[in-house]
Amino acid sequence: MSRVFNFSAGPATLPEPVLRQAAEEMLDWHGTGMSVMEMSHRGKAFVSIAEQAEADLRELLAVPDNYRVLFLQGGATAQFAAVPLNLVGDAPVVDYVNTGSWSKKAIAEAGKYTRVNVVAEGGKGDPMGIPAQATWQCDPQAAYLHYCANETITGVEFADIPDSGDVPLVSDMSSTFLSRPLDVSRFGVIYAGAQKNFGPAGLTVVIVRDDLLDRASSLTPSIWDYKRQAEADSMLNTPATYSLYIAGLVFQWLKGEGGLEVMAERNHQKASKLYAAIDGSAFYRNPVEPSARSWMNVPFVLADDSLDGQFLSEAESAGLSTLKGHRSVGGMRASIYNAMPEAGVDALIEFMADFEKRHG
Amino acid sequence: MSRVFNFSAGPATLPEPVLRQAAEEMLDWHGTGMSVMEMSHRGKAFVSIAEQAEADLRELLAVPDNYRVLFLQGGATAQFAAVPLNLVGDAPVVDYVNTGSWSKKAIAEAGKYTRVNVVAEGGKGDPMGIPAQATWQCDPQAAYLHYCANETITGVEFADIPDSGDVPLVSDMSSTFLSRPLDVSRFGVIYAGAQKNFGPAGLTVVIVRDDLLDRASSLTPSIWDYKRQAEADSMLNTPATYSLYIAGLVFQWLKGEGGLEVMAERNHQKASKLYAAIDGSAFYRNPVEPSARSWMNVPFVLADDSLDGQFLSEAESAGLSTLKGHRSVGGMRASIYNAMPEAGVDALIEFMADFEKRHG
Repeated sequence: MSRVFNFSAGPATLPEPVLRQAAEEMLDWHGTGMSVMEMSHRGKAFVSIAEQAEADLRELLAVPDNYRVLFLQGGATAQFAAVPLNLVGDAPVVDYVNTGSWSKKAIAEAGKYTRVNVVAEGGKGDPMGIPAQATWQCDPQAAYLHYCANETITGVEFADIPDSGDVPLVSDMSSTFLSRPLDVSRFGVIYAGAQKNFGPAGLTVVIVRDDLLDRASSLTPSIWDYKRQAEADSMLNTPATYSLYIAGLVFQWLKGEGGLEVMAERNHQKASKLYAAIDGSAFYRNPVEPSARSWMNVPFVLADDSLDGQFLSEAESAGLSTLKGHRSVGGMRASIYNAMPEAGVDALIEFMADFEKRHG
Repeated sequence: MSRVFNFSAGPATLPEPVLRQAAEEMLDWHGTGMSVMEMSHRGKAFVSIAEQAEADLRELLAVPDNYRVLFLQGGATAQFAAVPLNLVGDAPVVDYVNTGSWSKKAIAEAGKYTRVNVVAEGGKGDPMGIPAQATWQCDPQAAYLHYCANETITGVEFADIPDSGDVPLVSDMSSTFLSRPLDVSRFGVIYAGAQKNFGPAGLTVVIVRDDLLDRASSLTPSIWDYKRQAEADSMLNTPATYSLYIAGLVFQWLKGEGGLEVMAERNHQKASKLYAAIDGSAFYRNPVEPSARSWMNVPFVLADDSLDGQFLSEAESAGLSTLKGHRSVGGMRASIYNAMPEAGVDALIEFMADFEKRHG
């Protein structure tokens, strides 16, 4: 067995100790004689797994007591519908910042259920950036202000949390969740698909402030009703049990590594190195304004895009996998989530320098 | 490591060879250097896994070419909303048979989106049964006729497929799916959560006839839109990749065992034995009419329910796990899905006889 450095944007690389433990426990979890995958979600064993996962996540993020942590299904795309269904209430409009593909999808989905006011358009042009908040055209009657904290495809990330005043702030944090500490108290709702930074696809974390639990439309599907799921400890129906178990192992791993402050240092270090290597070369280029560059997803293009195929196949041979950029933008993309070790980034930088030497 | 016989109603026991293979491949699937859990869903490796899973499922069930197979998220409870959202179209009403708890939940959820006509009430009284179809009050204008093929909680199962005439027939098959051959051509839509008979919780199979793909309400969340998911090969968003991989391994296991005819024989044999043991005793009782008895979920009560706790704790000690009946009905329930070997049923019958001898 030989593990590669996997730069996939999601599903993405996971900590090897987590996978080892999962493999070891696959047929018999803690002497129960069964796999976690086979356990009743109502049984003591699984309830203990779910409770521990929630407690660890709360500890990692210092989630305030007036927030509920839900473990739901459907990924962030499900929340694109669930957010307006749960939060619009009597408001006539919702505010969305558009900074790229995922913002656009969230806006389109919300438009099925309410009127959407796009407050600003970013993530366009070259270099791509995020318009200053002073220029945003917010509606004071909006039920909430929504933004995508990190656009996975283009690598455009908010460096700071926007100030939404009294309007609840809602964020799709899928690809930045748990990459650094976060002031949860600034938000009304945070949601994140697990498959970027903390687990298998199919699990979604939703963190929602208590006072927002009473606004759901009668059209909200039960399994996405925040209040009902909060009352049922996310077990209104059978949750994605095995995915939650893996996420729990990732939370434990994060705690063991020193928590989110340590992750922030490491992630900042990894991203800084990689951007420095790109910026220091005329052969590679990153098309994002430095102030809006993602720590998690680093897209780059080759000056000569006819070399793209060769770059990818040689990288693959060197054990650097899944570096192809999203089909909508082309080029390359290195996703360097928590579980990507600095050694993986070093290996990529070394390969890039070598490739440039041979083809530049 | 010692495996128990796990009678959980779901999540439920899985074939041991499937779990062994999953454990072996956890860190490196087929020399890719990564876990299936870490693979991009758009990459060649995972696409091959998904395609094989669909091909195997189609082969097992002999799914006709004019049906699409979707792998979605959210469990059957998600489909309680997705079915009316996708299928009502311009129809003024939908028909539902009520045979128990899951039927009731499906009816309540459909009632959010359309008018529901309950055509018959079953699964009540003692013994519980299913009203003859001749007595059902169907509405000829109904968009579809829905029934729950197997009520997991009470063990009330349809022995035959109802005749819905020209009205599309829709069935929640969660706990009977793949337990025997099925004439798919009789249905408009079949759906099933994986966690009973073919995989981890979080994956849902939907089999939908082509001509029903054009009726979705504009309020349908994108990830549940049958047509859009059919066009996107179930990858409109990131699917529950690892759960789909496990389901694929179960499909392979089913094929290796001889397919659904063999499963039907085994399941019939297991259920017959267990019902015979119950019926042959004055100490145990099953509260379902013989014609409506489930092959998959066998509830039974003790004549003296003060012995319930002792029965459960002694069974647990004997390696017979998760026999407690659903909290809404009490007593015991043995779920004996495909992956429960006949030896497990034999062990249960032996334990029951011994317990009766000591306490009867």
